[in-house]
Amino acid sequence: MLQFKVIKNDASSSARLGQLVLTHGVVDTPVFMPVGTQATVKTLTPDELYEMNTKIILGNTYHLYLRPGEDLIEKAGGLHSFMNWQNNMLTDSGGFQVFSLSKLRKITDEGVYFNSHIDGSKHFLTPEKVMDIQQKLGADIAMCFDECSPYPCSYEEAAAAVRRTTHWAGRCQAVHCREDQALFGIVQGNVFPDLREKSAFDLVEMDFPGYAIGGLSVGESKEEMYHILDLTHTLLPPAKPRYLMGVGAPEDLLEGVRRGVDMFDCVLPTRLARHGTAYTRRGKITIKNAAFTADFTPLDTDCSCYVCQNYSRAYLRHLFKAGEILALRLLSYHNVYFLARLMENIREAIREGDLTGFYHRFLRDYQVN
Amino acid sequence: MLQFKVIKNDASSSARLGQLVLTHGVVDTPVFMPVGTQATVKTLTPDELYEMNTKIILGNTYHLYLRPGEDLIEKAGGLHSFMNWQNNMLTDSGGFQVFSLSKLRKITDEGVYFNSHIDGSKHFLTPEKVMDIQQKLGADIAMCFDECSPYPCSYEEAAAAVRRTTHWAGRCQAVHCREDQALFGIVQGNVFPDLREKSAFDLVEMDFPGYAIGGLSVGESKEEMYHILDLTHTLLPPAKPRYLMGVGAPEDLLEGVRRGVDMFDCVLPTRLARHGTAYTRRGKITIKNAAFTADFTPLDTDCSCYVCQNYSRAYLRHLFKAGEILALRLLSYHNVYFLARLMENIREAIREGDLTGFYHRFLRDYQVN
Repeated sequence: MLQFKVIKNDASSSARLGQLVLTHGVVDTPVFMPVGTQATVKTLTPDELYEMNTKIILGNTYHLYLRPGEDLIEKAGGLHSFMNWQNNMLTDSGGFQVFSLSKLRKITDEGVYFNSHIDGSKHFLTPEKVMDIQQKLGADIAMCFDECSPYPCSYEEAAAAVRRTTHWAGRCQAVHCREDQALFGIVQGNVFPDLREKSAFDLVEMDFPGYAIGGLSVGESKEEMYHILDLTHTLLPPAKPRYLMGVGAPEDLLEGVRRGVDMFDCVLPTRLARHGTAYTRRGKITIKNAAFTADFTPLDTDCSCYVCQNYSRAYLRHLFKAGEILALRLLSYHNVYFLARLMENIREAIREGDLTGFYHRFLRDYQVN
Repeated sequence: MLQFKVIKNDASSSARLGQLVLTHGVVDTPVFMPVGTQATVKTLTPDELYEMNTKIILGNTYHLYLRPGEDLIEKAGGLHSFMNWQNNMLTDSGGFQVFSLSKLRKITDEGVYFNSHIDGSKHFLTPEKVMDIQQKLGADIAMCFDECSPYPCSYEEAAAAVRRTTHWAGRCQAVHCREDQALFGIVQGNVFPDLREKSAFDLVEMDFPGYAIGGLSVGESKEEMYHILDLTHTLLPPAKPRYLMGVGAPEDLLEGVRRGVDMFDCVLPTRLARHGTAYTRRGKITIKNAAFTADFTPLDTDCSCYVCQNYSRAYLRHLFKAGEILALRLLSYHNVYFLARLMENIREAIREGDLTGFYHRFLRDYQVN
């Protein structure tokens, strides 16, 4: 099931405040969805995510299909039950991962032959198989199997991927039957405006309950990405949620929201954390830096998260230098919280008609690097 | 400060129920103290330890001296404040670590020359220096600098270590001056009864507020260890707490308590966890085992910890196989909780005059391996 309601449209941009009702509850949009690739948002427990008011997280179909397998997860009662997650989930289709992680062997109109990145074993995924997997995982939102063309790529290559993605979307729709799970289409087209138009047009015809914008943040410049977003959101029905896949830098969340995006996901906050980088209102900091050796202030003096209320930069730096797992936990917690709070501030700014003001204030202080 | 009160002596063994009052609150004994080597009990937050009712943890002087250094920790307001720990702490003296971890260069009556296990840098620790470090760290209990002879070793070697340990204990006592910190003496003597007697006699003369039994669980058989404990506890004043260093296997906790030990510490619960091993009432299990692939029961059906209430063996196995940090967290939490609950059960059994019954019931079910 899926209901989407636009509560308020921003006057000075394409941003909108919305509410998405899914099987496991209400999600206020725009929303950032933390990624739980292997049935865990890395280093964190579900309870910690609830503390941050997280209403929806991702799981990765490609990873979970390879390990532990969708049949085991189905036997556990589905992904929610397997990982002890009580709010909403979205599973991606594995399309992006097959192309970016696996050793790709062959793409045909029928499906994709590839070798597992874990053990090299041979696999064949079709739209029907991907639907079967996602229905066994049982997330609240499933995604159509898509072909994500690389960047850079030729127009012909990108066009072929769009044609195949549309064809596969039809096959996904034909076999998808879980009523407690909404199926989203994915707009492809690389950086070619007419391909984005073609892709969006054909998918909108098919009347999905929501649409993703795929194939961005894969190597193109930010300007190219924003340019494609400028176009693409105008091609999608205003009454349906729009999800920009794989994008999560704070500045991109702001730019995406202003271009009509309702949902985002990205591994960045947890991945950066594991490399010792923390978000702050002034920009990112690298906790290993000697400058923080005797810095007894929190990561971000402006932050009210558990980590900033209880631990100093000096302590976190020590943990990180000493190779302690607690460092990875605490930085991950802070970074996911930071994005959750940013989205909360964005929603509040839209509600109060001050998104442009918030946007300028945020980017004045936040050093993009 | 330290007050120790024996509340009840067990009728059928040397076990006693006690209460230890330290600067940061009351500790019920017998107690197991989780180890926070580098200013963190590995993978866990202080809040998680409070949830388990943990009243005292360890910090390691050797590690903290090398990184981040006692001066930084003093600047942070001491170890409690640095790591955000509000209950009691004990710091060991670094004696054991200097001998087991560092590249030892020379021992003289003056002190120990060694190379850091981190960067090979040269260091010289004396009893006075170790007292200075521990007073800067500011734990509630500090330990005298001792020489821990290896196992096996000659009588002469062990005798020399005892002589030096006693001599150093006097020097430690002479310079120790923090009134909010109690200083314990450490009985050495390897597996030689007359050396244990000599060591204990001389240290008891010096009237420390508590005594540790050091140099056990270093390679000798369990029978040898229990034998030395049988002797040593009779040499120590009944009105003072007795601490068996570095011992933490469930069966050894029970055997130690029956031989008059009040305090224990060990890295075992967290180290085993990071290697995928969990305690259960039936014995240890290795979560990686294929047998648990589709086992949707908790680690220990008899356990009321957060992990056993929320996660299945199948899920924990998946996390462990997938290399997820959450696996290490959850297993560590469970193992530390398991020992906390064991000690609680032991205290309750002494209180109710049923320690021998509990001992037999526990060891009937618990498969030692």
